[in-house]
Amino acid sequence: MVTTRYPTTTGHGATPTLEALFRPRGVAIAGGFANPTSPGHHVLSSLRESGFPGHIAVVHPGESSLQGVSAYANLESIPGPVEMLVLAMPAVAVADCVEGIRRRAYHRKDLQVVVAICGGYAETGTPEGIARQQELVHGCHNAGVRLVGPNCQGVLDNRSRLDTTYLTGASRRASGISVLSQSGSMGAWLALEWASLPVPVGLSKFVSLGNMADVEMTEVLAYLAEDQPTRAIGLYVESHVQARALLEAAGAVALRKPVVLLKSGRSSVGGEAVQLHTLSSDLSHDAAFRQAGLIQAERVDDFSAILSAFDRLPLPLGGRVAVLTNAGGPGLYTIDTLMKHGLAPGHFSNPTRMTLAATLPAHSLLGEPQGYVNMTAAVSPRQTAQAVAAVLRDPGIDAVLPLFIPTRWGAAELMAQELLQLLPGVRRNSLDKPLFPVLLGGAAVSRARQLLEENGMLTFGTPDAAAAALGALVRFALGRQAAPTGD
Amino acid sequence: MVTTRYPTTTGHGATPTLEALFRPRGVAIAGGFANPTSPGHHVLSSLRESGFPGHIAVVHPGESSLQGVSAYANLESIPGPVEMLVLAMPAVAVADCVEGIRRRAYHRKDLQVVVAICGGYAETGTPEGIARQQELVHGCHNAGVRLVGPNCQGVLDNRSRLDTTYLTGASRRASGISVLSQSGSMGAWLALEWASLPVPVGLSKFVSLGNMADVEMTEVLAYLAEDQPTRAIGLYVESHVQARALLEAAGAVALRKPVVLLKSGRSSVGGEAVQLHTLSSDLSHDAAFRQAGLIQAERVDDFSAILSAFDRLPLPLGGRVAVLTNAGGPGLYTIDTLMKHGLAPGHFSNPTRMTLAATLPAHSLLGEPQGYVNMTAAVSPRQTAQAVAAVLRDPGIDAVLPLFIPTRWGAAELMAQELLQLLPGVRRNSLDKPLFPVLLGGAAVSRARQLLEENGMLTFGTPDAAAAALGALVRFALGRQAAPTGD
Repeated sequence: MVTTRYPTTTGHGATPTLEALFRPRGVAIAGGFANPTSPGHHVLSSLRESGFPGHIAVVHPGESSLQGVSAYANLESIPGPVEMLVLAMPAVAVADCVEGIRRRAYHRKDLQVVVAICGGYAETGTPEGIARQQELVHGCHNAGVRLVGPNCQGVLDNRSRLDTTYLTGASRRASGISVLSQSGSMGAWLALEWASLPVPVGLSKFVSLGNMADVEMTEVLAYLAEDQPTRAIGLYVESHVQARALLEAAGAVALRKPVVLLKSGRSSVGGEAVQLHTLSSDLSHDAAFRQAGLIQAERVDDFSAILSAFDRLPLPLGGRVAVLTNAGGPGLYTIDTLMKHGLAPGHFSNPTRMTLAATLPAHSLLGEPQGYVNMTAAVSPRQTAQAVAAVLRDPGIDAVLPLFIPTRWGAAELMAQELLQLLPGVRRNSLDKPLFPVLLGGAAVSRARQLLEENGMLTFGTPDAAAAALGALVRFALGRQAAPTGD
Repeated sequence: MVTTRYPTTTGHGATPTLEALFRPRGVAIAGGFANPTSPGHHVLSSLRESGFPGHIAVVHPGESSLQGVSAYANLESIPGPVEMLVLAMPAVAVADCVEGIRRRAYHRKDLQVVVAICGGYAETGTPEGIARQQELVHGCHNAGVRLVGPNCQGVLDNRSRLDTTYLTGASRRASGISVLSQSGSMGAWLALEWASLPVPVGLSKFVSLGNMADVEMTEVLAYLAEDQPTRAIGLYVESHVQARALLEAAGAVALRKPVVLLKSGRSSVGGEAVQLHTLSSDLSHDAAFRQAGLIQAERVDDFSAILSAFDRLPLPLGGRVAVLTNAGGPGLYTIDTLMKHGLAPGHFSNPTRMTLAATLPAHSLLGEPQGYVNMTAAVSPRQTAQAVAAVLRDPGIDAVLPLFIPTRWGAAELMAQELLQLLPGVRRNSLDKPLFPVLLGGAAVSRARQLLEENGMLTFGTPDAAAAALGALVRFALGRQAAPTGD
């Protein structure tokens, strides 16, 4: 999308403004109430469903209340604090919007941030759209108010129970994952995918940035770097008027917290779609992003798996991996996939080999190749857990990937119970090496994955997702060890 | 795995033997009945669950029946036809097995094929294992009987209702997809993944080939080339003693039917795991496989999507693709993914552009870039279907990918119903261009996908799977147009 960026407003410290973005004392919604399927109603529903504890009000001249929330004739007349305004008015009404913002800011002095969700601005590429966006940006600037969007879905924060989006299925569970996205619908996709997992992935903060006419991704990124609950940051980027600035900002953050990047508009045609030919050279240089310490995800499912792993697993000390499998074919497939991500197999110590030989079924293959154990389909759940524990103790191994497929005689739930019993450290998150259990079989292992996840163990549904996550953790860990200023 | 290949038995026409592999008049199971979880019991369960209409018997000296099936003291004494023997005896009992096979073949003259499911043969890499395999191969050869395996799961044929495997969750629905696999557990993985889809993928034939001591992948592949119900062939290959022979055989088949390849042991370490250093140079040459016209899948989910597309969609005439989306971010992601697979966007004709402009919501983006339509989240189900129909009619477009994500105001089911109503050709499979509908949102679109699939429309869960499938169909179609002998 085309963004017309207004020079950064001086006199705004980033932190107080973004505090109001994530923890406003009160929120008002203006416009978008023409009928029950209009955006204002969806935002109001999201705010109420999230259990937002602050003040909520609605601007609607014709009603006294909507969905049980008090309505007022104009923004200025709302009693109580309004630190955030969610603007759902059509873009053609921009003059009215600006006037309302001006009056609220002048008379009440509480408004901090406007979230403009509607489209019809610069992203249309039309002179009118660009002019409207400039008018909105100027109006907010003159009122001393920051602007998120326009053409965005605003913000979700599961800790402050704020939700101005109209995502469906977004988890209300707080995690250590925060996501910044240029596209609101990309957030919608992630929310629905995460809700469909055996145990839904939680979110700390989500910000849909839209046209970034004022608040830029770099600014929110800097905020998240300091945000204690955020352990891993996901960025969805289509284009950026200042790709180098993003690279710099993200690179600085990436020394301290993992920053995982998902990009579109990489191909020349995708680039054309976002009308940013001039930027494609910056954006297509994957090497630059890598060099800045950012972790790039190839696919949406990898993006999710990598973020979850950073949120929930300890970092490995190195990249020496062990794979234990009850199925040969999928085991080899996993080895190949790990190698694609640049990982190297570890070497088992002699005590580990002896323990494995004493524990596992007769025809098991131990360390052929190095770091690989085919326990065969005859392995019992107890033996599986014992073997995983033995390999975790080996000082030559940094991370363990147990691979399991249910058979007619081996149910996944039994294996899960044994794993939890033999690895009590998982419950207390006190394992010092990351474990990447892959349970193959979709619906057939759903219950077992729930059992493991509810007891604190992250699980994966494919070797591909686990290998992407493991590769990312190893790269981040080694990069941090090498960085002079890493903490 | 190490395979000790016996010279191809002369005097066996491939076709009669493989007829007995897929449609035996009678099946006997010997061994593996030590306890209720032994392999013989699982094979017997599979055979009974598949509804095999032929004669079934069991060799068990101590019992008169097992699971309601008559048991006999030895193979020779079974009355009625025994064209297939499933051998579930431990490898150490190979001398007894060979003697039983010899006597049955000599006295009854009905035995055609032995499926040896147990391990403990050449795959162990031990001198005893290799010797046992040689003894079994010689025994079968001398008896004029073909051998599948050892160390395999044998065969599943949904049309003849034969199942000697012990897969869990394998679909009993017949489709046009046949899969040959060196690994039985790879079949298990596919079966469970396919069973977990909103509408399970069916199978025509599945053969787990194991050590391939006698019957080779090339031979079954040649059979499938002539097999009328098989429309698409999937190969899972870890290694092959005759990689070049496989390449040649598959290349010949690929002129007539799509052959989709999934490989492990591509990395040097994966290659080490299959103990086939000498072959890694052949196997790692993806270019050779591409040149032979084979289609390589990068991941298991792509493998499944590609096979389903070949089975159920018409081939495109070219690679000019159109994407219609109700969500910008996922739309751009899709464009990028299509480009990765070498696809090019089509150009809409002027009538198509006019129809789209008259049909779609005001802020829709038409043809920016070419071949891309962002219908915006405001698009209605009816408008979606009308736009898809208009683009399908455009002579400049070879394939259409409609992308949909449910919103708070747009349910997937309504969109599905409108698509089915406006594209009645889908019900009769008479659309002449392939359609690749991607429904994002996991569980949230499961019902809509069922609705579409039950009415004959193939659907996809991610842009990645759809793009892999579309890329494969285009490559196959263009390759066939270019091939001098293509039919």
